[in-house]
Amino acid sequence: MPIYTCTCVQGSLPSDVKDGLAAEITRIHADVNGVPPDYVNVVFTETPQENVYVGGRPGTPLLINGWARRGHPQDSTTRLALAIAEAASRVSGIPREHVMVVILDSPARSAVEAGRVLPDPGQEAEWLAAGRS
Amino acid sequence: MPIYTCTCVQGSLPSDVKDGLAAEITRIHADVNGVPPDYVNVVFTETPQENVYVGGRPGTPLLINGWARRGHPQDSTTRLALAIAEAASRVSGIPREHVMVVILDSPARSAVEAGRVLPDPGQEAEWLAAGRS
Amino acid sequence: MPIYTCTCVQGSLPSDVKDGLAAEITRIHADVNGVPPDYVNVVFTETPQENVYVGGRPGTPLLINGWARRGHPQDSTTRLALAIAEAASRVSGIPREHVMVVILDSPARSAVEAGRVLPDPGQEAEWLAAGRS
Repeated sequence: MPIYTCTCVQGSLPSDVKDGLAAEITRIHADVNGVPPDYVNVVFTETPQENVYVGGRPGTPLLINGWARRGHPQDSTTRLALAIAEAASRVSGIPREHVMVVILDSPARSAVEAGRVLPDPGQEAEWLAAGRS
Repeated sequence: MPIYTCTCVQGSLPSDVKDGLAAEITRIHADVNGVPPDYVNVVFTETPQENVYVGGRPGTPLLINGWARRGHPQDSTTRLALAIAEAASRVSGIPREHVMVVILDSPARSAVEAGRVLPDPGQEAEWLAAGRS
Repeated sequence: MPIYTCTCVQGSLPSDVKDGLAAEITRIHADVNGVPPDYVNVVFTETPQENVYVGGRPGTPLLINGWARRGHPQDSTTRLALAIAEAASRVSGIPREHVMVVILDSPARSAVEAGRVLPDPGQEAEWLAAGRS
């Protein structure tokens, strides 16, 4: 259900770090938002150094943008963003000063997966069961 | 006015499929949201396989993220997402289980095109006419 | 705090134009939203021509997507979008008809930078001071 896009400078994240970070984002999101891990999408967008600026100068941030269904309690979303930021810095070795995490949302009814409108937060079990029948 | 970003694994969508999917997204959005087709932007972001994870493992989803002006009725937005998901699977041959569509929004007054603030939903005709004068 | 993503066709923006546009976006955002310039992230995503469609046909738009913390007055956000669109056209030479700017938002409490939850608009000074101690 969620989509995470991790934007970084080309070559700044070795393959095993991407593997590890995708695993951590998946684990944390499943845990905090109550979604089966198989439904968590993570994409890395690697960008040439010359295309990334911080403060108008070349920079090497790790920018993580997540989309989740609207309606999770704000406290959960804050915990989610904190946990992902901590994991990103720990797994990648990038200092936390250069890691940013943003969670965006829109209504579950504005999203479709596997041909079906997504369930509101809290309705996942029914939605998943209906998909199996 | 809208911007659709289709993220997929490199090589998973041949050129004619991208042409066809861009045409379908354009047609559906124009029809459902009452925007002239010429104002629909569609971008494909092709990502190396090693950069795309589903459930923490390599995956080949087709992730379609759309932005539209806030204020369309929720039912329209749901229909829009369903129709685009159906078209994406039909045109690409990717099983619907691997297709996800998310529509995001923000106020029309937070967006500018052709140098002018976008109109709220329902005000398109006046905006377009003013642009021609 | 904000993240701007500028999507364009590969080769349509020379290096000095990207430098200039990143500088202008940084200056304008800092000025309008009261954020130190060092906290403004700008990323250019260059896409092969064959992957960019406007109205279902190949196009060469400059699409600028910004994320900012929710809670800025709508008038500021409108001014921000207008000023960035004007700067983008001026710096790049791309006609304003082909430039689009969209500002998205989510709560500051849904975002983490430097290991800390972002401050709501207006609380930047305390947040920055606490980070220095």
